Amino acid sequence: MDLREQAVEFAHENKGRFLSELVDFVRMPSVSTNPENAADIQKTAEWLVAELKKRGCTRVEVFPTPKHPVVYGEWLGAGADKPTVLVYGHYDVQPVDPIDLWDTPPFTPTVKGDYMFARGVSDMKGQIQAALKAVESIQAVGPFPVNVKYIFEGEEEIGSPNLEPFMREHTDLLKCDFALNPDSGMIAAGVPTIVYALRGLAYFEIRLYGQDHDLHSGLYGGVVQNPANVLCELIAGMKDADHRVTLPGFYDKVRPLSDEERAELARLPLTEEYYLSGTGARKLVGEKGYTWVERAGARPTLDVNGLYSGFIGDGSKTVLPYYAMAKISTRLVPDQDPVEIRQSLEKYLDAHIPDTMRYEIIEHAGSKASITDIHTPYVKALEKAMETVWNKRPLYKREGGSIPVVGHMQEILGIESVLTGFGLPDDNVHAPNERLLLPNWYQGIDALIHFFYNL
Amino acid sequence: MDLREQAVEFAHENKGRFLSELVDFVRMPSVSTNPENAADIQKTAEWLVAELKKRGCTRVEVFPTPKHPVVYGEWLGAGADKPTVLVYGHYDVQPVDPIDLWDTPPFTPTVKGDYMFARGVSDMKGQIQAALKAVESIQAVGPFPVNVKYIFEGEEEIGSPNLEPFMREHTDLLKCDFALNPDSGMIAAGVPTIVYALRGLAYFEIRLYGQDHDLHSGLYGGVVQNPANVLCELIAGMKDADHRVTLPGFYDKVRPLSDEERAELARLPLTEEYYLSGTGARKLVGEKGYTWVERAGARPTLDVNGLYSGFIGDGSKTVLPYYAMAKISTRLVPDQDPVEIRQSLEKYLDAHIPDTMRYEIIEHAGSKASITDIHTPYVKALEKAMETVWNKRPLYKREGGSIPVVGHMQEILGIESVLTGFGLPDDNVHAPNERLLLPNWYQGIDALIHFFYNL
Repeated sequence: MDLREQAVEFAHENKGRFLSELVDFVRMPSVSTNPENAADIQKTAEWLVAELKKRGCTRVEVFPTPKHPVVYGEWLGAGADKPTVLVYGHYDVQPVDPIDLWDTPPFTPTVKGDYMFARGVSDMKGQIQAALKAVESIQAVGPFPVNVKYIFEGEEEIGSPNLEPFMREHTDLLKCDFALNPDSGMIAAGVPTIVYALRGLAYFEIRLYGQDHDLHSGLYGGVVQNPANVLCELIAGMKDADHRVTLPGFYDKVRPLSDEERAELARLPLTEEYYLSGTGARKLVGEKGYTWVERAGARPTLDVNGLYSGFIGDGSKTVLPYYAMAKISTRLVPDQDPVEIRQSLEKYLDAHIPDTMRYEIIEHAGSKASITDIHTPYVKALEKAMETVWNKRPLYKREGGSIPVVGHMQEILGIESVLTGFGLPDDNVHAPNERLLLPNWYQGIDALIHFFYNL
Repeated sequence: MDLREQAVEFAHENKGRFLSELVDFVRMPSVSTNPENAADIQKTAEWLVAELKKRGCTRVEVFPTPKHPVVYGEWLGAGADKPTVLVYGHYDVQPVDPIDLWDTPPFTPTVKGDYMFARGVSDMKGQIQAALKAVESIQAVGPFPVNVKYIFEGEEEIGSPNLEPFMREHTDLLKCDFALNPDSGMIAAGVPTIVYALRGLAYFEIRLYGQDHDLHSGLYGGVVQNPANVLCELIAGMKDADHRVTLPGFYDKVRPLSDEERAELARLPLTEEYYLSGTGARKLVGEKGYTWVERAGARPTLDVNGLYSGFIGDGSKTVLPYYAMAKISTRLVPDQDPVEIRQSLEKYLDAHIPDTMRYEIIEHAGSKASITDIHTPYVKALEKAMETVWNKRPLYKREGGSIPVVGHMQEILGIESVLTGFGLPDDNVHAPNERLLLPNWYQGIDALIHFFYNL
């Protein structure tokens, strides 16, 4: 039995412990957007420090940022002739609301059948643990085959505001050959997937102000314009009947899909039925002229993520609200620029806002899309590892979500990322009852063991 | 000095005590829409019982209803040859949010200069107190000139769901010649006003459901339609560029304004400047073809009162919400019917909702508009009383707000209402920093003393 087989066997023998250590990681409520969870974020960072020390790192450090800390670790014992992989992860998670739709408490990880339910278990604490447990399994049976660095951020779910400056300040520290980023997923259980492109994200909060305080809708309804009505009109105008975004210049920089790429994407089994069953939607709609898989991954979008005005409690209040708010995000594709998208939005609002109102924009995130070279030896090492575990060649996919760090690593560190992960589309990430399919996760650990040996 | 003059003198000498008793009334947080204030509502009802006993009522009773109680009192000692007036009031108040915009706590009544600040001080606890203190002043110097009944409800701010059935069950108990309803106001300090028409109210909550749980906007943005975007489109379509409501049949039953009535309304000093200064709006807008005073009081409207979807906390969440909600109310004029307005809304939604969604309507209020005969001796008694106190003939006005009880009293009890009040348009009713101009309130007490003697 060679080392590789021994390491896989170690992983299999330690499944129970790996699971209970995943529970320890997931039960910490590291919600990055909630100020009240700042201490939990800190605790989670410290938990990772302890874990990296156990993984033999000769240097482990917590770097404070203006918001949440970056955890760094390194083990360079494989020698200068071996490649260095930078393992990326984010240890923060999404908020849990609407909390009343969870069947089990979001931070009390609960195993039911083949699934573990908890906020962050799929996105992406389970993925970080898969990487760390693969490393542990290899270390348990022999020397680690490559040099490894780790970078774990606590702000991915709020747009990674401090990771880019951190990388710019620490280019030497982060010097490596490529990154392993397990923050994407598989398109179905048993269908290994390598993601080669990600959409970008420009996320804005629009606040629309009319008069300076709430008014009685009986006394002034009919003469005072209502910011909530106007906000609805503005949002309604942001898309046309073909589901295209109308912000001026929105599509100007969109790189057209080549016929070759469209043919490649058409081979993915991402049909209408796939998206319907994954979402519970009664029907799909999308931009005219594109297939479902193109709409979900390779075309830009605009969505309202939050909406508020006036009285939203039980019952009624006859108020004419003084202000209305919408959180609106656009998913971007190459070569759209979030700075230009903000300008498009401002141009649109300036042109359409009535002179009874003024607006304010708060920018919550802005990152470009990215496309990775799939011909590197590192991507090939993963392809081969996945083939070993699942007995089939992985699919190559463009992902609809955004992982800004991939673009930043390309630009700042000059490295490509190998994007994978063992979560599934129906894991309810960013939603109630987030879950992780455990058999798939265990296979993911096996795949990463092979991957490291393949490098 | 005749009795009338003595009563007015009594009122002037007791201003300090009247004010402190107003504080007692206003400090009770009788917010009818909040389940957590149920005990406060009860306490307020009991406070009124004690007050009515002090006013010599020979019968005082608290009638429970499925929600908040009705307080009833009567004193019929003037004799069968004298008219009987039914004094109406509501002792419940609006919610206080947005609480952070209050300069002083809403239930800690605070006097600053000529104003008292507190939730409900203008709408309408101050008005009830003005009536009770006028009665007290008359009783202090001699016999009360007319028979008097009192009906105080605790549900006006939530659409009076139980008052109409209560009146139907107690037509004998409530038998009287007319009602005094001080729930309207004056158009400016020192400008006495009698309201002769009120708008009705149809208040709906629309809930729009797409898929059955929140989704990740990166993974599914572009293929799954967003209920928040669609809700905005539906609301945007409810009005046209002329600020007219587009719900099918919405204007069918609207009684046209006669030339005579338009001329009468044109004499009110309710100019653009008046509404601008009363609202803090930067500019007014309104339905094409009508004047400001007509738009604010004599034409129907549609306003969003509340809007919610997705994530509205600080920061960002990239969620594709599973549902979106709007509270929408229409102000109605004669002869619109709230039942038909609901049908209009349903017809509109059925015609425009995409087949990716389903909706649900919750009806929070439905009441017709009302117009009162201004030629009764009771209205004339008030006109004369106001002229005595302010040295000018009162203005007659159509009010934009809704007081459903006026229509119900017409229909069920067969009586007209005398509508007045001593609040002002800039009292911030239904808004933060609600207030009452005390000198005007004291004059209101004087006016009601004269009114009762004039009957």
